[in-house]
Amino acid sequence: MSQRHILLMDGPDHKGLIYHVTRILFAHNQNIISNDEYVSPSRYFFMRTEFEGDTDIPELLKALQSELPAGLNLRINPKKNKDIVLMVTKEHHCLGELLIRYAFNELDATILAVISNYNTLQPLVSKFGIPFHFISHENKSREEHEEAILRTLDIYRPDYVVLAKYMRIITPQFVERFPNRIVNIHHSFLPAFIGANPYRQAYERGVKIIGATAHFVNNDLDEGPIIAQDVKEVDHKLTASDMATLGKDTEKAVLSKALKLVFNDRVFIHHNRTIIL
Amino acid sequence: MSQRHILLMDGPDHKGLIYHVTRILFAHNQNIISNDEYVSPSRYFFMRTEFEGDTDIPELLKALQSELPAGLNLRINPKKNKDIVLMVTKEHHCLGELLIRYAFNELDATILAVISNYNTLQPLVSKFGIPFHFISHENKSREEHEEAILRTLDIYRPDYVVLAKYMRIITPQFVERFPNRIVNIHHSFLPAFIGANPYRQAYERGVKIIGATAHFVNNDLDEGPIIAQDVKEVDHKLTASDMATLGKDTEKAVLSKALKLVFNDRVFIHHNRTIIL
Amino acid sequence: MSQRHILLMDGPDHKGLIYHVTRILFAHNQNIISNDEYVSPSRYFFMRTEFEGDTDIPELLKALQSELPAGLNLRINPKKNKDIVLMVTKEHHCLGELLIRYAFNELDATILAVISNYNTLQPLVSKFGIPFHFISHENKSREEHEEAILRTLDIYRPDYVVLAKYMRIITPQFVERFPNRIVNIHHSFLPAFIGANPYRQAYERGVKIIGATAHFVNNDLDEGPIIAQDVKEVDHKLTASDMATLGKDTEKAVLSKALKLVFNDRVFIHHNRTIIL
Amino acid sequence: MSQRHILLMDGPDHKGLIYHVTRILFAHNQNIISNDEYVSPSRYFFMRTEFEGDTDIPELLKALQSELPAGLNLRINPKKNKDIVLMVTKEHHCLGELLIRYAFNELDATILAVISNYNTLQPLVSKFGIPFHFISHENKSREEHEEAILRTLDIYRPDYVVLAKYMRIITPQFVERFPNRIVNIHHSFLPAFIGANPYRQAYERGVKIIGATAHFVNNDLDEGPIIAQDVKEVDHKLTASDMATLGKDTEKAVLSKALKLVFNDRVFIHHNRTIIL
Repeated sequence: MSQRHILLMDGPDHKGLIYHVTRILFAHNQNIISNDEYVSPSRYFFMRTEFEGDTDIPELLKALQSELPAGLNLRINPKKNKDIVLMVTKEHHCLGELLIRYAFNELDATILAVISNYNTLQPLVSKFGIPFHFISHENKSREEHEEAILRTLDIYRPDYVVLAKYMRIITPQFVERFPNRIVNIHHSFLPAFIGANPYRQAYERGVKIIGATAHFVNNDLDEGPIIAQDVKEVDHKLTASDMATLGKDTEKAVLSKALKLVFNDRVFIHHNRTIIL
Repeated sequence: MSQRHILLMDGPDHKGLIYHVTRILFAHNQNIISNDEYVSPSRYFFMRTEFEGDTDIPELLKALQSELPAGLNLRINPKKNKDIVLMVTKEHHCLGELLIRYAFNELDATILAVISNYNTLQPLVSKFGIPFHFISHENKSREEHEEAILRTLDIYRPDYVVLAKYMRIITPQFVERFPNRIVNIHHSFLPAFIGANPYRQAYERGVKIIGATAHFVNNDLDEGPIIAQDVKEVDHKLTASDMATLGKDTEKAVLSKALKLVFNDRVFIHHNRTIIL
Repeated sequence: MSQRHILLMDGPDHKGLIYHVTRILFAHNQNIISNDEYVSPSRYFFMRTEFEGDTDIPELLKALQSELPAGLNLRINPKKNKDIVLMVTKEHHCLGELLIRYAFNELDATILAVISNYNTLQPLVSKFGIPFHFISHENKSREEHEEAILRTLDIYRPDYVVLAKYMRIITPQFVERFPNRIVNIHHSFLPAFIGANPYRQAYERGVKIIGATAHFVNNDLDEGPIIAQDVKEVDHKLTASDMATLGKDTEKAVLSKALKLVFNDRVFIHHNRTIIL
Repeated sequence: MSQRHILLMDGPDHKGLIYHVTRILFAHNQNIISNDEYVSPSRYFFMRTEFEGDTDIPELLKALQSELPAGLNLRINPKKNKDIVLMVTKEHHCLGELLIRYAFNELDATILAVISNYNTLQPLVSKFGIPFHFISHENKSREEHEEAILRTLDIYRPDYVVLAKYMRIITPQFVERFPNRIVNIHHSFLPAFIGANPYRQAYERGVKIIGATAHFVNNDLDEGPIIAQDVKEVDHKLTASDMATLGKDTEKAVLSKALKLVFNDRVFIHHNRTIIL
């Protein structure tokens, strides 16, 4: 059976773009499995096409580049699992969810390693035979700590870094190393309750719904492009601590959903918003 | 059949409060239809008891006041429709919903009148035979405009004023006249996107869920106790205007739900949060 | 500005279909506004393309028919409001919702008339200046009653007939007159609780969620293709009658959502399922 | 600190029941932490009271029994983790969820053992140091197989048996041994799609929402009292297999939610419905 590939394309819209792409794929004897496009109100074009067939991929890419209008971003990825490294602190709920999915091959990714600033979760990770790197932040400056983490990441060279309840702020210098390749789960329905202790804030404001947000990380804390969100109803009977417990179920579900989209090359980023095809 | 009443009680918790209340109702030959209590983590007690039976209500209230610990707020309301006045601007969706419910006796309230700073919605209101007061804000100071509205409200003396998409800020002086008796529908999932144009803000932030919030109005704009919230999922394909259209369905559903709770005496206010029994 | 049109196409899949369609539209100087396709696992192809531009539509259709493989269903509709007739019995909630939306031009349809077997809702309909036909079923056989309704429908020749809580069974003969053009709202989460008194059934089964279903009507009662469904959480405290009250809000929301899809030519029917593009 | 207890009481309603219960608890120097009651439309009374204080529990129970009307079911449970045994077949999603929760002490139960008719999940279970009993059904009659399982259960004497995707029918004889003490997760939104292959059925019916149901097991397959349900939206793009994948997330969330209610003594059963206090 021939390998499946995914064509990802975005740029200013032109008349006939879909026509030309499908024509070129047709000419290269590729069969389109699925095809999704979106044009923004400001006429920016996005396209994700899954296809299969026997052809020389670099040649196909060259044909697309030479025959389509200039100014388009074009990538062709093989359809396969991504390599990832998880970063965690002490909470187990997101990590546990991802480990179980990974153990049964449902994650669309390979977990190369887990890095933590505490050793709390080492016993859980080692049950699954995955390397655990305990890199304490104690007695280190933020820069020294991040340097140590980056050295470990350099060993694994992951496609994505997933912050699965990593509770420390990361610096722009760190983010720069993985542009649009760090996914975080934030324990609130952003943009409400930015920052620390969102469940305490939610309790005090008396909201009737709480939520969680998975997003790419950029330089502004909690301000990166949102990938997925979900919510749960609450009432006055829940304490801030009850809300945190309930919120964890939302967090792990939202993170799983977002990662599935990212690992399947479905997420485009444009002007701090995500386009999901 | 004897009249139903609702006992509402809140104050610092004491051992045996439920016991004493049920004992006194029992002694006055009242049958408890439903009974809900809540004690907050800081030991503040809330109780709502619906009961029926033949008795002298002022005497029952006196018995409760004299036999229960001092410092409790105690009220007994007959179970009946509330009198309300609606205030609107130009949008019809919440108003239309309330008028239809009212026309078929499903609102648990009597709409005495509708007040608006535009005459846009007069044709709709007049279909239902309800007085419509067009009180333009043009060529008036905010104080003069509110004075004119208050004079109209003085005619009707409503139990509650419902801001069913009334798009002007109201002053603390106005709020003071109806403490905890003004309900507003806010077109966002508070506390996200406070203020004007929340759907534009939601679009630009790229959120995946939008919502609406019904709340009591106090002096801080958009900061009053939240009664009900609900949400809808959105994606990148929706423009800010699409989000507004979708949001309107959420707004009218949330406002209806909140009003049902308020008009049935189910909502207590405590430290800017609502306790709903 | 040139008229918008919608191309609807379905049939067995062929390699290059999207390519050929977009090529022909391109050649006829049409600008594609949006384009959605779906290929079923059994390789059946569906496509909805919204486009605009100055061209001779019958000629464009002819070009598509002659250049595309045989065996495809092809239609081009102008993008405009549909003509509809509503049929109701005694309940107002769906009717009220549709009338308010219609009054403010949000229905994507023109309500030509309302037909009912009771005169209960005449006062509501007449508020909106729409013809109301009271056609009682009393002292008539089912066939006579339907004949009388069909004679009225013949006057209006609607694109769609909407059963907005019409509580009588309609015969296959009636359905045959409007193939895939009758939309019904069913007061349960189909296929659970088919038939009469679903809220009573839901209460007795003790379900924790109730729902509503909008579907096309075919010869098997409650068995036509589902267009939209939604649900609400319930608990033991709700009586069957409370569930009915709550269910009505779901019914009207689901019907509105389904009609929007149908009236915008987004719904294909295939093997008793709907494909919504 | 004194032990917390939970009083559970149900039976025909009498005037003053709450009064008498709270009076007796007050007299025995117990502090009520929370108190929930419900009276059904047919005047059946349910009450769950959590309390704490130093007293002789058997004596308190005796006082309640002698001073309250005859015909009430009365139990007092200490507030503590339940002992459970899980039964599974091959699917890991519910089991994985429960193991992770258990490992971090969030399950409100102690998993004594896991029993399975396949050895597929042994590696996962052994990661958590819990006994795994592989009891194959091959070459055994249904009765012989169940006898072997019952002998194993006799060793552990669990409070509850949880069928966490155990895919075999169990006999009335088995159920009889654990009346109202077996919880099952069913992979559909009951009562829709009873029986095998519900996702295939859901696909073919073209539903727009799928769900899962946690329920007690009684003699009628899939007919026991429902504890919790939840749903997810689907569309035509999902195959039956996609629906199954998505459904698993719902199943594990619903089972977790139901177990939390059951293990905290919040679930009463009455006429095949659950009352959850």
